[in-house]
Amino acid sequence: MLVSAILTSVGINSALCVLFVVLYSILKKQPSYYEVYIPRLLTEGNSKRRSRFNLERLIPSTGWLPKAWKLSEEEMLSSSGLDAVVYMRTITFCLKVFSFAGIIGIFILLPVNCSGTELHQIDFEDLYSNSLDVFTISNVNRGSKWLWIHFSSVYAITIFICYLLYHEYNYISSKRIAYFYSSKPQPHQFTILVRNIPVSAGSSVSDSVESFFTEYYPTTYLSHIVVRRTSQVQSLINDAKQLYRRLLHLQSEPSEQKYKQVGLFEKKVDLLDHYGKRLEDLEQNARLEQSEVSLAKDTHAAFVSFKTRYGASTVFHLQQSTNPTHWLTEEAPQPNDVFWPFFSSSFMGRWISKLLVVVACILLTILFLIPVVVVQGLTNLSQLEVWFPFLKSILTLAFVSQIVTGYLPSLILMLFLKIVPPIMEFLSSIQGYISHSEIERSACNKVLWFTVWNIFFATVFSGSVLNQISIVLDPKNIPAKLAVVVPAQASFFIAYVVTSGWTSTSSELFRIIPLICSLMTKCCAESTDDEIEVPSIPYHRDIPRILFFGLLGIAYFFLAPVILPFLLVYFCLAYIIFRNQFINVYAPKHETAGKFWPIVHNLVIFSLVLMHAIAVGIFSLKKLSLASTLVLPLPVLTLLFNEYCRKRFLPIFTAYPAEILIKKDREDQNDATMSEFFDKLATTYQDPALMPIQYSADSESLNRPLIPSAEMSM
Amino acid sequence: MLVSAILTSVGINSALCVLFVVLYSILKKQPSYYEVYIPRLLTEGNSKRRSRFNLERLIPSTGWLPKAWKLSEEEMLSSSGLDAVVYMRTITFCLKVFSFAGIIGIFILLPVNCSGTELHQIDFEDLYSNSLDVFTISNVNRGSKWLWIHFSSVYAITIFICYLLYHEYNYISSKRIAYFYSSKPQPHQFTILVRNIPVSAGSSVSDSVESFFTEYYPTTYLSHIVVRRTSQVQSLINDAKQLYRRLLHLQSEPSEQKYKQVGLFEKKVDLLDHYGKRLEDLEQNARLEQSEVSLAKDTHAAFVSFKTRYGASTVFHLQQSTNPTHWLTEEAPQPNDVFWPFFSSSFMGRWISKLLVVVACILLTILFLIPVVVVQGLTNLSQLEVWFPFLKSILTLAFVSQIVTGYLPSLILMLFLKIVPPIMEFLSSIQGYISHSEIERSACNKVLWFTVWNIFFATVFSGSVLNQISIVLDPKNIPAKLAVVVPAQASFFIAYVVTSGWTSTSSELFRIIPLICSLMTKCCAESTDDEIEVPSIPYHRDIPRILFFGLLGIAYFFLAPVILPFLLVYFCLAYIIFRNQFINVYAPKHETAGKFWPIVHNLVIFSLVLMHAIAVGIFSLKKLSLASTLVLPLPVLTLLFNEYCRKRFLPIFTAYPAEILIKKDREDQNDATMSEFFDKLATTYQDPALMPIQYSADSESLNRPLIPSAEMSM
Repeated sequence: MLVSAILTSVGINSALCVLFVVLYSILKKQPSYYEVYIPRLLTEGNSKRRSRFNLERLIPSTGWLPKAWKLSEEEMLSSSGLDAVVYMRTITFCLKVFSFAGIIGIFILLPVNCSGTELHQIDFEDLYSNSLDVFTISNVNRGSKWLWIHFSSVYAITIFICYLLYHEYNYISSKRIAYFYSSKPQPHQFTILVRNIPVSAGSSVSDSVESFFTEYYPTTYLSHIVVRRTSQVQSLINDAKQLYRRLLHLQSEPSEQKYKQVGLFEKKVDLLDHYGKRLEDLEQNARLEQSEVSLAKDTHAAFVSFKTRYGASTVFHLQQSTNPTHWLTEEAPQPNDVFWPFFSSSFMGRWISKLLVVVACILLTILFLIPVVVVQGLTNLSQLEVWFPFLKSILTLAFVSQIVTGYLPSLILMLFLKIVPPIMEFLSSIQGYISHSEIERSACNKVLWFTVWNIFFATVFSGSVLNQISIVLDPKNIPAKLAVVVPAQASFFIAYVVTSGWTSTSSELFRIIPLICSLMTKCCAESTDDEIEVPSIPYHRDIPRILFFGLLGIAYFFLAPVILPFLLVYFCLAYIIFRNQFINVYAPKHETAGKFWPIVHNLVIFSLVLMHAIAVGIFSLKKLSLASTLVLPLPVLTLLFNEYCRKRFLPIFTAYPAEILIKKDREDQNDATMSEFFDKLATTYQDPALMPIQYSADSESLNRPLIPSAEMSM
Repeated sequence: MLVSAILTSVGINSALCVLFVVLYSILKKQPSYYEVYIPRLLTEGNSKRRSRFNLERLIPSTGWLPKAWKLSEEEMLSSSGLDAVVYMRTITFCLKVFSFAGIIGIFILLPVNCSGTELHQIDFEDLYSNSLDVFTISNVNRGSKWLWIHFSSVYAITIFICYLLYHEYNYISSKRIAYFYSSKPQPHQFTILVRNIPVSAGSSVSDSVESFFTEYYPTTYLSHIVVRRTSQVQSLINDAKQLYRRLLHLQSEPSEQKYKQVGLFEKKVDLLDHYGKRLEDLEQNARLEQSEVSLAKDTHAAFVSFKTRYGASTVFHLQQSTNPTHWLTEEAPQPNDVFWPFFSSSFMGRWISKLLVVVACILLTILFLIPVVVVQGLTNLSQLEVWFPFLKSILTLAFVSQIVTGYLPSLILMLFLKIVPPIMEFLSSIQGYISHSEIERSACNKVLWFTVWNIFFATVFSGSVLNQISIVLDPKNIPAKLAVVVPAQASFFIAYVVTSGWTSTSSELFRIIPLICSLMTKCCAESTDDEIEVPSIPYHRDIPRILFFGLLGIAYFFLAPVILPFLLVYFCLAYIIFRNQFINVYAPKHETAGKFWPIVHNLVIFSLVLMHAIAVGIFSLKKLSLASTLVLPLPVLTLLFNEYCRKRFLPIFTAYPAEILIKKDREDQNDATMSEFFDKLATTYQDPALMPIQYSADSESLNRPLIPSAEMSM
């Protein structure tokens, strides 16, 4: 790929970014778009809709920038939770890494690369038509002593990154402890989920739980709630709620609309009456179903609450039964975080669904290679002309060919990648997790490795599944193969950073999809009484993206330092834009208290080892076998460092230590409000589907009274 | 290798076995060999030394056979512990497997193999000079429909073995629970070992432990003992004890021997006086050292005892400190099982020593290939003649060449293998384990994989390290390569079973090495007042041997069923001989309560998967690709089965469930003897080196009063 093609891509995307930012700063000030751009502020009541028109509203402004910039970590922690802090720290971590890498890369490595003559001398007169390869390590002459600079920079960046990783892990784990320590008593701290409860003939699950825990934990056991299979009831209740809302809407409308012609006989029916009857029927059915579910015995699972956090924690950690597949314990999620639909209590059931999900992920990965191969075809123009001869005439135009090779491939990839996070989330949800946050974390991992595999490896090894598998099955030659193929794709990944990174981040600010949805509902639907739903940030979509750019940066750091400035721009954009979005748009729905960090840590370690493998290959390719050998200790030391971190910090992210639990419990003993809390605790984990049907304040989307909201949305 | 060479080997070894058994049955009846053959009965007082001579003592008898045969599992459990039961069940497991496999192999597979004509027709007239290969699958014609019989037998044996494995795992885990449930209160059930205790400036480790546990576990905490580094004191005390014994010995001797010429001046010194003074000095030094050690603060570790088993277990399972590398908990071993010399409390120290041990194991594995290569050279006579031309004339003798190819290689291997278990035990001991039984278990694993790698894989892939590594690095072709090389070594492994298996088992009965040691001490040393030390069975030597033969049997079952009868003879011998040894020789020193079974289970699963890999390779080599494909689900299903077993049974082997612990604790509450037990518990884990020096009844080798024993050994 030529410099010109990259510049075309940079041009298009910079223009897009500027356009998005400008549009954002205008639209943000229009009251009718408040739901899209400041839903969080709206629901918190910090921003009032002003219908008065003034000219200022049409002029783009940068007022949001300083606000986002000034936000301190404490403010963020209190407003968006620890997960948001971890997310932002991931971005600043990348910023730090690539500032350091950028300085080395641009001021030291790039001049060295350019001074080489392996490929050809740089044509400084006409940089525009140079191939990007002259800026990469490929241009350094074989056996050149200059390669030792690359060697030292690999060592320097590894040490720097490991130091930062240790520091971050340490900081975040202390934050996690502090977060727990400062938290108010929360139901999930006192509760565990027990599955596979054995039931003797003639008794119920509830009896079984009651007798087990009163026998073995008489001093700490508090109460329990048996989990039911309620998907049918849930759907009935949802129908009822929808009908109720339609009824409310009808009531507030002029009376002539309340009648409707039914069928050919043109008989007018009182819609209010009609809907009222249907609602009653639905309610009846739902109640019937509720009582049936309460009698059914099919899920052998229960939420068991204890009087102390330490009590819950001991039951969670110890194997309870002589049969290790009975009385399986698990930490309970937050009550609003529980995910009911695919709840399965059976040990084998969950195991099999896990296996099926693994198979599905593998299939998805293989199927996804089809678009990747197509994209790879696009970067290779001559190949395209062979496939589609009729395109020949168009492709001869310089601009078109530059768009096709520089912009189109990564755009297509990006669009295909858009559908991956929802699919992975779905797969994780049927895997047996019982909380939204666990599903998100698992999906985050899936999306991450999918991206690494399908974007990075599939691109560098140009597509074919068999090719990739044969490489994995021949681990000895991986470094050599990587050394050949990775530098060759530098320009593609620069284009990818610019397209996927820059544009997706600025479109995150502009919120294209929510904007389109909002416009569509405004045009099509008559009803405007839907409440504003404050979205939560989809970590399983955004963390893998950030980390993948981190991986690209680390892998290409010493190969093609040209990529670093583009990455730095990306991370700066992400830094400011996500801070802004945390203030205005996203509100936390559930909290994992920093459990995403180990995922970040692991991927950075993987990126480092990948870089080392490439370095080994490159140095032996460049006939500098001493350097190639001397790199070998690096991956070993990096993995040992990782192992140390796993021992030193990871346990904090899986469970809280006894010391803290006991201290917190002691503090609570003197708290007068605890008895009230325990009273509530007994019913907190009741499935919402089994409670009496309420038409307001019982689900997250309905958390405000209906009528006032209808008044509010003009 | 020819049938004749195998028969030579069988002949020699059968003769040896018979000789050993006959000698055993004679020597066993000689009172002077009681220490060698019935040390256990002697110390238990069940057998009295009869000095009256009669002719019956010189006639070989078979009286021990029915005794060993009749021993029931309950008797074994009560006399030798659960580990011995697990060991015997491993042998009976193999017996069951190979009885089933033997029936299929000899009556179905062998005739099919013989009827093939791929290599050459069997010469039934002169079986003696046939090559063994005609009895193997290599002789079946390519693409023959008869191979489906081999295919079905692979499925049949896999299903049979998995069924047995499940049944055994289930049985042994229930035995383990029952064993714990019926056990008396034991110190290690109430105690945990805490390492990496953080100490604030100015306070001692003991203060730190005391304040931590009284603060967080006021209701269950009982007492603690800080671990000291005592190797120096220990050596002083050992010296003192030796001197004391010499003194005692001198006292009982005639008085003229009590004086000895010292130096050139021929001055006679009263030895009693001399030794007495030295002993006093030593005692003084030891006491000094003891008080110094008690003041030193270098090990940050302590044994902490609790009032209940459940209390100890919760502290063991929960992470205690906010820093997961502090207050590391570990289950305490039995007091007599504690291994003090290499005790290291530091987290990093143990980690690094673990890494070093891994490196040492790898080095040992590589170095060990040298004898393996030599052995391989022996099986290849022409190679040997090239290396040592002067041997040519001898090697032309049929008998010599048969010994060299049939017997010598496996004898050499066997001798080299003898030194592996002690080395591995040493490596495990410096790895940071704190109990003899843990060291033994870890050594067992090491020896096992060493054997599998260095005997099986090094032999089939004929030696070279690089060759082996290149095979591991090319996993795709493993089945194909195995299919070529494994059948080729069938005859070597048959010889190995006969030599290493038969002879080593019968020499186990005859106890060659202890016999030689006993003879040597009788000839050289004047003193005969050493007590009889009852040995404990070295599981890390014997379990890997049994399992390796199991692996051979499973791997060769459908390739060369000729091996099965030899294996069956081996397991029958082992069955009867080890039962006899458990009655007469070995007494349990420590008990892991069945923790060896998971090792057995894992190796059998590995053997099955190995067999499947070979089957895949063989069937595709034999141009029966459909069968080759249809075998593929088997390893997957086997691994899934293994995974299920891991979830279903393994937790029972790592810790006892809360249910049982609480029940046991409740039973104890009504027990009046418990307060006495708790009083003792406070000092049980005191390092023997720090107690006042006692010259009797304080170590296992000195557990009987000195004078009576001196009288006893005439």
